[in-house]
Amino acid sequence: MNPTDDIAAYMDRVGAAARVAATAMARAGSAAKDDALRRLAAALRANLGPLQQANELDLAAARAAGLAEPMVDRLKLTAKVVETVAEGCEQIAAMPDPIGEISELRRRPTGISVGRMRVPLGVFGMIYESRPNVTIEAASLAIKSGNACILRGGSEALHSNLALWKLVQGALVDAGLPADAVQLVETTDRAAVGRLITMPQHVDVVIPRGGKGLIERIAAEARVPVIKHLDGNCHVYVDAEVDLEQAVTVTDNAKTQKVSPCNATESLLVHAAQAAAFLPRIGAVFAAKGVEMRCCPAAKAMLAAVPGARVVDATEADWDTEYLALVISIKVVASLDEAIAHVNRHGSHHTDTILTTNHPNAMRFLREVDSASVMVNASTRFADGFEYGLGAEIGISTDKFHARGPVGLEGLTSLKWIVLGQGEIRR
Amino acid sequence: MNPTDDIAAYMDRVGAAARVAATAMARAGSAAKDDALRRLAAALRANLGPLQQANELDLAAARAAGLAEPMVDRLKLTAKVVETVAEGCEQIAAMPDPIGEISELRRRPTGISVGRMRVPLGVFGMIYESRPNVTIEAASLAIKSGNACILRGGSEALHSNLALWKLVQGALVDAGLPADAVQLVETTDRAAVGRLITMPQHVDVVIPRGGKGLIERIAAEARVPVIKHLDGNCHVYVDAEVDLEQAVTVTDNAKTQKVSPCNATESLLVHAAQAAAFLPRIGAVFAAKGVEMRCCPAAKAMLAAVPGARVVDATEADWDTEYLALVISIKVVASLDEAIAHVNRHGSHHTDTILTTNHPNAMRFLREVDSASVMVNASTRFADGFEYGLGAEIGISTDKFHARGPVGLEGLTSLKWIVLGQGEIRR
Repeated sequence: MNPTDDIAAYMDRVGAAARVAATAMARAGSAAKDDALRRLAAALRANLGPLQQANELDLAAARAAGLAEPMVDRLKLTAKVVETVAEGCEQIAAMPDPIGEISELRRRPTGISVGRMRVPLGVFGMIYESRPNVTIEAASLAIKSGNACILRGGSEALHSNLALWKLVQGALVDAGLPADAVQLVETTDRAAVGRLITMPQHVDVVIPRGGKGLIERIAAEARVPVIKHLDGNCHVYVDAEVDLEQAVTVTDNAKTQKVSPCNATESLLVHAAQAAAFLPRIGAVFAAKGVEMRCCPAAKAMLAAVPGARVVDATEADWDTEYLALVISIKVVASLDEAIAHVNRHGSHHTDTILTTNHPNAMRFLREVDSASVMVNASTRFADGFEYGLGAEIGISTDKFHARGPVGLEGLTSLKWIVLGQGEIRR
Repeated sequence: MNPTDDIAAYMDRVGAAARVAATAMARAGSAAKDDALRRLAAALRANLGPLQQANELDLAAARAAGLAEPMVDRLKLTAKVVETVAEGCEQIAAMPDPIGEISELRRRPTGISVGRMRVPLGVFGMIYESRPNVTIEAASLAIKSGNACILRGGSEALHSNLALWKLVQGALVDAGLPADAVQLVETTDRAAVGRLITMPQHVDVVIPRGGKGLIERIAAEARVPVIKHLDGNCHVYVDAEVDLEQAVTVTDNAKTQKVSPCNATESLLVHAAQAAAFLPRIGAVFAAKGVEMRCCPAAKAMLAAVPGARVVDATEADWDTEYLALVISIKVVASLDEAIAHVNRHGSHHTDTILTTNHPNAMRFLREVDSASVMVNASTRFADGFEYGLGAEIGISTDKFHARGPVGLEGLTSLKWIVLGQGEIRR
């Protein structure tokens, strides 16, 4: 397909082709899908040279455009990146096929048996930025889950994405599957995105990956369901009864192991009964790592004496802020109730953890915190499709509807009802 | 709350109150929720007189406005209707509490255990017409599933709905639950609906019940997810290998047992190998019951000689039409492939059944027909929350996203991830 003509007509053709391919993919056997994934892994390894040549065009353009080096880094198809996505394809091939799985089949008093069968959603659109490895991750999840997908990567990665996509199409065709099961939007025209998210006849769901602004804009304009990943204002709550040593280790890990992911902790709540014991200890760790602490007055008083600590007053806005940086907000709370209410009000319903040795408190936090992932005595950094055993992750949902939290193959499927009868009729 | 002031401000107050109530409902114990449901059942029975007095106001207004008698009938709170909804409350009270259920809790190599917990969606809005019993059905499902709901019934049933709602609020308060867990929009101003479907800060999902036009309008204007129930263009496919006697019985039941529900069959496909044997037999049944048959040329030729049969030529539009009447479209197909392709193209992805004795064909139909309910050797009329054992039904979804087909308590919930650790950190 050639995007030189009218964008709407081009996207309609892409959408219609995806819909046709989706029917064939829904019917495809596990062997063919896994064969395509293994062929793709082999093709990625065999084509490292050509992939890096295409990638070099994007890198040169990015440097010429004055992109900051961390941004250029995210674009890079290093040998390690390519090997990682190839291994990812093989891992997905080795997973059980989710499609066709029948569950909960039960006999009813009328004689019919009623159950559910897992089926693909149909066609999903994926909108993403920079990292070209997302092209392969999305394609491999689409293939395994029996969906067709339409990929819209960042314009800065177009050459890399085109080169990767050609390998995907080759693997599909060699495995006897339709090439259009994975399509890449070949134009960088922004109008293509507007069309992609407003074609319910061709697209069943859209998954945007990028900044909060992008995702909010897409959600506002979309006419199809959107699996949204907004911000991750994650909390650690240190309870009144706690293993202090462990609490320091987990809180440190949740904040500093890596500050840029959405599951990094941004806010620390400490029960008043532990504040005097816990805060100076974690404060010393944060001081050594250069973490700025934005504190309520009570926390500030307990942290002020820590040598080298960067302690400032928190404003109201701090409780709602995802820093993605060496900054944390800290508040002393009077009770578990106050902690839960604070998390539900100021958090982003992403991931929150309680550190406690008290079982009833752990269970209350688990039940009452309204977040996609709620943890007990574990680092928020575990909120991740791979860590959860999903094998792969197409995104993380901060919504409650359909998929919540890390979304793997299951989030790309739906359950239909099946009824097995022997000629029963309704009375 | 008093709706005499600005509608938007009124709806915002209702929404904010629902959000507060939802937090308490999510935390509510099973005993309190079941107590409220049993108190509601008792109150309905004890207040039959006052309910019928309120209902009489609606009936008188409906008759004065010249409403057709079948429409007036749907408004009626007969003793039987009230007893049925009271029993429904007791049945829901007797069901297991879906909230807090933990599933799939598995140990990961890192030491953490990862699983899922079923939690309420939060606040749902319900938009419906005429039948006031929906007020109690929606309220009872909201209570059991730990959600808050905002009900917007038809203006023609406002007095009845207000009387029913007062009983719901009384039962909630007597059980120690917040009265605002179930709110009824007290104004008949249509602007209230427009606001209800565009307050994502207060409302998590909207469930409209009514004509296709209403639902399409709501879906187009909503800024929150909508559980949509569009049309039911359901199919019976009679395969090449079939028990003819059974096929006649099931096809007859699927079409004529009741013609107005969405799960009644609208289109009959017959394999060419059985057409000459099957069509005259079902044609005789349809002729006796006055069913008009809109036929392809091959079917027409085989049905023309049936005494008393009303046989006409089908137009292209017939294949896409939901009649909800004593009319059926009939087509002879050359193969199972043609049947599946026809159903997926012309059906409405609601409910379709294959009548066959051939196992591979049954399995292919089950897998490849992309509908909310796919059946083998059973009447399409079974597609119903009660028949499926859901205990109750808030609606039927023709979407694939989130809930598909009959939606019971589970469709009003979501799964969050839970992580149980012993101080694990991410490496």
